[in-house]
This record gives sequence, C-alpha cells and structure tokens, in this order.
Amino acid sequence: MSHTAELIAVGTELLLGNIANTDAQMLSQGLSALGINVYYHTVVGDNPQRLRAAVEIARRRADILITTGGLGPTCDDLTKNVLAKCFGRPLVRHEASARRIEAYFRSIGRPMTENNYQQAMLPEGCTVLDNDWGTAPGVAFEADGVHVVMLPGPPRECRAMFQYRVAPYLRACSDGAICSRTLRIFGMGESLVESMLRSQMNAMQNPTLAPYAKEGEVELRITAKAGHEQEARALIAPVEARLRAQLGSAVYGADVTSLEEVVLPLLKERGLTLGCAESCTGGLIAKRITDLPGASAVFRGSVVSYATPVKHTVLGVPQALLEEYGAVSEPVARAMAEGARRTLGCDLAVAVTGVAGPDPDERGNPVGLVYLALAAPDGTTVKRTRSGGVRERIRTLAASGALDLVRRWLSGAPLEETGTEPSE
Amino acid sequence: MSHTAELIAVGTELLLGNIANTDAQMLSQGLSALGINVYYHTVVGDNPQRLRAAVEIARRRADILITTGGLGPTCDDLTKNVLAKCFGRPLVRHEASARRIEAYFRSIGRPMTENNYQQAMLPEGCTVLDNDWGTAPGVAFEADGVHVVMLPGPPRECRAMFQYRVAPYLRACSDGAICSRTLRIFGMGESLVESMLRSQMNAMQNPTLAPYAKEGEVELRITAKAGHEQEARALIAPVEARLRAQLGSAVYGADVTSLEEVVLPLLKERGLTLGCAESCTGGLIAKRITDLPGASAVFRGSVVSYATPVKHTVLGVPQALLEEYGAVSEPVARAMAEGARRTLGCDLAVAVTGVAGPDPDERGNPVGLVYLALAAPDGTTVKRTRSGGVRERIRTLAASGALDLVRRWLSGAPLEETGTEPSE
Repeated sequence: MSHTAELIAVGTELLLGNIANTDAQMLSQGLSALGINVYYHTVVGDNPQRLRAAVEIARRRADILITTGGLGPTCDDLTKNVLAKCFGRPLVRHEASARRIEAYFRSIGRPMTENNYQQAMLPEGCTVLDNDWGTAPGVAFEADGVHVVMLPGPPRECRAMFQYRVAPYLRACSDGAICSRTLRIFGMGESLVESMLRSQMNAMQNPTLAPYAKEGEVELRITAKAGHEQEARALIAPVEARLRAQLGSAVYGADVTSLEEVVLPLLKERGLTLGCAESCTGGLIAKRITDLPGASAVFRGSVVSYATPVKHTVLGVPQALLEEYGAVSEPVARAMAEGARRTLGCDLAVAVTGVAGPDPDERGNPVGLVYLALAAPDGTTVKRTRSGGVRERIRTLAASGALDLVRRWLSGAPLEETGTEPSE
Repeated sequence: MSHTAELIAVGTELLLGNIANTDAQMLSQGLSALGINVYYHTVVGDNPQRLRAAVEIARRRADILITTGGLGPTCDDLTKNVLAKCFGRPLVRHEASARRIEAYFRSIGRPMTENNYQQAMLPEGCTVLDNDWGTAPGVAFEADGVHVVMLPGPPRECRAMFQYRVAPYLRACSDGAICSRTLRIFGMGESLVESMLRSQMNAMQNPTLAPYAKEGEVELRITAKAGHEQEARALIAPVEARLRAQLGSAVYGADVTSLEEVVLPLLKERGLTLGCAESCTGGLIAKRITDLPGASAVFRGSVVSYATPVKHTVLGVPQALLEEYGAVSEPVARAMAEGARRTLGCDLAVAVTGVAGPDPDERGNPVGLVYLALAAPDGTTVKRTRSGGVRERIRTLAASGALDLVRRWLSGAPLEETGTEPSE
C-alpha cells in the first residue's frame, strides 16, 4: 500500500509573511526520499477553528498528517490541543519530557520560565519524539487509520526531528521506493533546456523528467519508482548518461546543491588552493565557499576590494589601469585575479568586477555588466558577461559564473562555453 | 466589508521540496499591508483534479483567490485551464500578450520557442496584468463574487507583478487598514522577551503584540486595525515607545530587516567608513553589507583571511601572536581589526575569528567560540561570545554580533550589553 502525507503548518507569522514555510520544503524532500507522496501543503494561523477545519479536510485526503509549529511556550500549545480534540486523545503531563525541558535550560545556562511546562502536556498514549535540539517534544500517534505527527516549527529543530525521529517512525509505513537524481546546469536557460528535451520528457513514464529554474541555473530531476531503491537507481542511470551527452559541460553535477559543492572536492583532488578578489559580489563567493565545512583545506581567503583604492593598495592593481579603463573593465579584472593570486598565495584566484546596480557606474557601464577573471598557473582568462534582473540576481549570477570558471578549469572543460544568460 | 484572500501555489516542485513557497510569504506581506486578511495558504502539484479540489475549497472560504505558478511554457498552462473551468471562463488568444512575449524574447536576445505562445491564451473578458519582468502575463477577473488573480511563479516576477499590477487592482477591494510595526532585537532570546512581555501581550486587543524568533534575533510585531492608516499608526506609537523603554538598546530598529540596514545609514550620517577582517564568517559580513544598494559610499572592503598565513601577510597580525595564542584568540581578533583598519584605510574595522565547526580547532577551542573586535578611532574593543547550533547558525550569529558591535558604537549604546546567546 502506498502512503500519502499532508503537511499543515500552523502559525500566523506565516500568514503575515514574516517567514516562509521552509519546514514544508524540508519535510517534502524527506518524505519523497521515503517514497511517500505529498499532494498538499496547508498553512493556517494560530486559530483553533481554522486549524480544526484544515485537519478535517486533510484527514480525508491523506493517511499521514504532519503538523509543524504551534508547540512552543508562546502559543499555548494550540496544535496539540486541536489535534488532541480532532482525534479524541486527551492531553496528559509527560514527566520525562518535563525533566528534559528543565535539563535543556540548564544546558544553555538560561532561566526556565513556567510557561515552558506547557510543552510537556502530550496526547495520551502517544509516541514521544524527544527533542534534543530545543524544548518542545514532538508527538506521533495513530488514530482512525491516520498517522498524526506533530513537530516544532523552528526550522533547525524541525529538520533534526524529522531526520532522527520521524523518518525512522515513518519508514515502517512506506513500501516501494521513489528515487530521484537531479542534474544541475549552469549557463543555459530553462526554456532552452525544456525545448531541447521536450519530446523525450513527454514520452517518458518511469523515470520521469522535470526541469526547474533556479537563480540562473536549471535543475533536471529524474524520478523513478520501483520495488526497491536499487531497481529505481538502475532505471535512472541510462537517462542520466543520455542527458549528460546531450547537455555537455553545462551539467556541473548531480545531486549537489551548488557550484561550490563541486568546486571544493575538485580542488582537494587536485591539491590546489583557491583565493578571490571580489568587487561587486562583495564577499559572496567567499561566503558561499566557506558555507561548506572543510573549506579551510583549500580556500585561502578573499580580498573584498569594494572601494576602488583597495584594488590598488591591497591587490596591487596598477593605478594607471584603474584610471584608463575604470574599475569595471577587462584589464582590471585580469589584474585583480593576478593580484589576488600573489597576495593570498594561492594556486588559482578568481576575480569579479561589475555593476550590480541599481545604477550604472560613473563611466556609464550598464547594470548587469560583469567581468570574471581566473588566474591559474597556465595563465589568466577573462570573461565578459551580462545578466538581467535586480542587484541580488546579478550578484548571484556573477558569483556562480566565477565558480563555474573555476569548475571548468579544474575539470578540464572548455572555459568559453559558459554563459550567464538569465533563465526565465 | 472586509476581505479575505487565500493563496494557492501550483507546482510539483513545491511538493517535492525543490523550492520553498516564498511567493506566499511575499504576497502575505503585501496583502496584510492592504488590510486584507489571509487565513490559508495551500500548495498543490501540477495535477488538474487536485488543483480543482483546492480551488473549490478555497472559493468557499475566501473572496479573493490568488494563484501562483503553472502559467509558464513548460507546464501546459495548467492553472489557467483549471481556473477557467472552475469559473466558466473559456481561454481565448490575447494578441497583445502574444506580441509582448515576442518582444520580451527579442529584448533578451534569445530565440522564442513555439510553446511560449501558450502563455497568451487567457480567460475571456479578464483583466490582463502585463508582465514586464518575464513572459507569462498575469490575469484577474471577478466571477461568482470571487476575485480571481493568477500570477507567474518565479519569485522575481511574482513580486513585481504583485507590487505594480495586483496591489492597485486590489486596493479598491479593501477597506480599513491593518498597520504593523516590527521592532527587531539582537542579543535576547525569544522566551526571555516573551516572559518579560507576557502579561501586557495578553491584555492587549488593538494593537496586538506578537514575538517571533529568527536566526538569533527576536522580532516583536505590533499590529493595529483602524479605519485609516493614520489612526492605526497612532495606536501603535505609544506601544512602541513603551517597548523601547523596557528593552533598551537591545532594540536595534523598527521596520528593518537586518542589522546591516541600520548600520549603513548610521555610517552615512556620521560620515565614517567601515571595513572588515573575517575569518570564520568567511565573507558573510561583507556580503550582508553589500547586499544593500549604496554600500559603496561607506564600505571599503573586507579581508577574508580564512587561512592563518593570510592574517599575517595581508592584515599584518604578528606571527608571534598567532603562534602564542592561536588564530582564535582575543589578541589575534584585536590585531585583525587594527590590521584591517590600517590595510583598508577605514575609520572603523570589525574583525571576527572563531570556530564555526563542525569540529573544534587544532588548539581545542570549542565549536561556537567566537571573538569579535572593533577597531575605532577611540580604541579597540574585543568581545568573547559563545553560541550553540550548527555551522550556519554560528556564522550568522557571529556576523550579526559584529554588526551589532558597530551599530552600538555608532549609536552611542553600551558596547558590552550585547549578547549572542542563542534564542530558542
């Protein structure tokens, strides 16, 4: 029997737009990996009547119901009260949870306020999902053929609770496997990819193929269903091989979430170090690389030369170049990369200089014009790129373009095929 | 008459967890500012039956229905087809939109594939919401007492379409005003803030007060309803004043989204420049500052000295200090800040060195230990902080702690009251 889950997020802050429902994203990924279908997400505020209405609709369409939020000390345990009523399970004080909450506050060295004990009132006979990442325990029980799971809302807690508590609980409910593999593409727009692959996408039943556009990149998700994970993987492999042959070096990785996740292991394999000189990206490249644990083995650092004089004083870009060509130019990009390589003492240095907007620069260079340069032991390459959109998008594409240049050099792919055209 | 909107996001990529429903967040903020209540968000996949079911539920609970997604060329215009059927509006080709789509492709210099013409098939008699930010036009019509609005899914397009097309269309539907003002707090946990304010929160009817925890910060949202915006604002003002008196300099701003948004104008007002030396934050502080347009007026740059030798060669941290105390230490933080101030030629320099994890450093310093230093014309201050959680959280809190130190110096608040304790 195949299972269907439905997610209900509880919190007026979601309906007011204070936060995005990232818990739903994380849970959907996790449920999909367990082979459990998700057909609906619902968000409802801190309102018992409307939460109850949402639960009544959801229990008719799904046999696994997962709520997030409304368990904390500031919300009067709305979710537990409502779900307890919907499924006829009175709340009772769970002493072990009360002790855990006290211990949590001792461990972080902060006073525990009385309202925190509310979090230890749990539906009678439930499975308690211990929360090692916060105070509110999670809850799971089965009633009327529906598995009900309640999780805390803070994303960090919700993620850990799903991974270590809920996934093992649900694994028993799932049969068969849905596997997917996601190819990531930089430098081709979604509609180009889609029109190249349209006919084969339409003809495919299992696996299926779906493209998604993300911040100047395209993801192609291959999804297969089978009795076991191995069979599903075997269905995926030939499709992946065919797509890689069609799309060439624009495919930068599979089941990775970013270019930096590909660049870092390539650097380690080759035993090379990387550094940056960043102008319009303002530290974004360095930030993305150091988001990853283990970056220190290969990443030397970055000179964020945001003000023009810093390009001269720290990176050694000749004053004459800055005066003649301006900070946003091919020669300055080249000198920044070579200066960073020298100053930071790294094998490869990538530089970015461009106009992130909102206004053109003082020389009239348009918003979106970006020069990327890579200084390597075999010489320096400079690329001129142009992208559309707002400041954030321009910066993201510039950082991705720089990382793609490094990726191409490290993997022996042609440096020039790269593009940073906007995808729709 | 007061209006209620409901959001339906269409896209299997949301149910698979490939993306978060950030459109719902943006639209909720915008609708709340228009005084329109939002009681539910729903997410449904690219499935006509389930979309239809979601629409049938939503039209009974709301009189404004806004869909996002499912208008692009790769999804067979699922949303328009289903909504057209639900509300009895056949799709007809809209010539002006076909011409706009052609022009859009010409403007970005890319070939237009035939499937893009699907986007010009629109419900008969609808108001066309021209899309200047992408290809799929939006749609609005009124049927059976429900206003139906369909918007493209890509967040950049959806945001612009809401601001410039939908908000003017809906303003006529709204009466009364809901205003809110959000105080932002750094250095106090949510449950401490909540327990300080509990009794007054419970006693308040209009305005209401609600705390939200976000990445080591707390937001306090004051929301008032009145006939006009001015009256609502007048209800909010005394509550804000009282809260500021209670919470002191931990309140760093109102209706701002980040510390950097406060620091940048303070620097401009004082005519001072800022630079950074970043180790464990790896460029995050510079990235956050340069996210903001206009940063170049006051921000000189950052030396991301991720590798220890770079602290010496670029920032001039004495080798003896690095050897004696290690990179994560009070003397090195101080020397980094002073070195950045000298190297980058700025008035204020902030430095961060710490252990972001996942492992302790080679001297056994624990994950989460971070030194922050501020070098200013009146001397250098160093702060030792300790935070819990994972790498991303430690880096975010370290960057925020550094920015808060700058904010406190610039605004004359005590430097030492700051804390970077985790909030729950």
